[in-house]
Amino acid sequence: MRRTLKLTVSYDGTRYSGWQRQPGRLTVQGQLERALERITREKIDVIGSGRTDAGVHALGQVVSFQTESALDAGTFQRALNGYLPHDIAVLTAEEAAPQFHAIADALWKTYRYLLHDGPVRDVFRRNYCWHYKCRLDVDAMHRAAQALAGTHDFRSFESQWPTRASSVRTIRQIRVERGYDACEHLIAIEVTADGFLYNMVRTIVGTLVDVGRGARDEKWPEEVVRAGERSAAGMTAPPQGLYLVDVEY
Amino acid sequence: MRRTLKLTVSYDGTRYSGWQRQPGRLTVQGQLERALERITREKIDVIGSGRTDAGVHALGQVVSFQTESALDAGTFQRALNGYLPHDIAVLTAEEAAPQFHAIADALWKTYRYLLHDGPVRDVFRRNYCWHYKCRLDVDAMHRAAQALAGTHDFRSFESQWPTRASSVRTIRQIRVERGYDACEHLIAIEVTADGFLYNMVRTIVGTLVDVGRGARDEKWPEEVVRAGERSAAGMTAPPQGLYLVDVEY
Repeated sequence: MRRTLKLTVSYDGTRYSGWQRQPGRLTVQGQLERALERITREKIDVIGSGRTDAGVHALGQVVSFQTESALDAGTFQRALNGYLPHDIAVLTAEEAAPQFHAIADALWKTYRYLLHDGPVRDVFRRNYCWHYKCRLDVDAMHRAAQALAGTHDFRSFESQWPTRASSVRTIRQIRVERGYDACEHLIAIEVTADGFLYNMVRTIVGTLVDVGRGARDEKWPEEVVRAGERSAAGMTAPPQGLYLVDVEY
Repeated sequence: MRRTLKLTVSYDGTRYSGWQRQPGRLTVQGQLERALERITREKIDVIGSGRTDAGVHALGQVVSFQTESALDAGTFQRALNGYLPHDIAVLTAEEAAPQFHAIADALWKTYRYLLHDGPVRDVFRRNYCWHYKCRLDVDAMHRAAQALAGTHDFRSFESQWPTRASSVRTIRQIRVERGYDACEHLIAIEVTADGFLYNMVRTIVGTLVDVGRGARDEKWPEEVVRAGERSAAGMTAPPQGLYLVDVEY
């Protein structure tokens, strides 16, 4: 009998050419499908809630797939964690409704971006944040970011527009806070939205950093939205600071 | 004029064959000496307070060296951080007394060992802790560890005895605590002593883990000390959980 399973997956994206399966490349989707084939002897297409880029991490990527296997969800989880490389882990596995689809059914996704603005790099976080050597004004960044909350056309923040039918998205919450992980130099930028355009979070981060270092004033992100073109925004922040945190259904 | 400088150095030991310079191997000492040669054009021997093994990390390794260079300490720090690979960082650099010696003058050293006893691995910590899949009784481990505090002959905890003239050392403090880094599954074992034998911390950890999983009772570590031979103790815990935290002078 054909069933649908839902997994929550965490991965360190450092070694991977991103989520999406590509011939001849190491990808997270490819590793999951390979492990599932070893377990079930079936060719399984797994669906991830979002395609993370090379170097981007996940704390709670949600994955759905269909199988004929009779193994229970807990057995799938243990077997997958046994076969998967150590930089990918299945945190939860559960039975889902037959039609459950990790992309189509996602309502809200949350991404976090970590910046480190201390004078000396943290060697243990070199693959897990963007080390930005000048001190950033986090309060100014937070205030400036609020212009992005709500429903807007975010094409200014998309790397290769148009890749989707519409570039209108709704940001439910955006926060910029210092002191992540009890570290004075770690800044977390967290964005929850109903969907994201290509490189949208990284371009928002690059834009807010220009405010935080004092190169632009707090009104600027609002102007960037209004401009409606990518060249109006800041740089695309590097991938290693980005985490897919959570997906709500 | 010949001067002595003192550095505090942090490194991620994952890629290195340990601290100590070895021909044809990537080592932390080798990287530091190479960077110093580029800065000063001198061949400099750097002295590290302790030789960490392959895979072992440092948060505060203390290093001393002598140079004829007139560069001030701050310039040394910035230049070193520019030349060093990103998994080594110089946290502080300062002028030291001419005779200062990072090994000979060390009074107390503190090592920390991190264990993760959650059912699923933390992908971001796979190189930074020992993932031990069964739940450990941390209170029993802490109580058992107290038999090691004080001055004892620790030859039972040395991998290749005798490597030093004496195997008597004094442990000033040993603590086992759950909840490191606000994570319920992370256990820190912290040991401060006037010196350590080869693999001493890792063998103490392997021994305490046997208590924590219930294979041995709390009196056992005391018996291991009295036995006076390595075969009496537990296994040597793997290197990636170990950190040289701090050196007191």
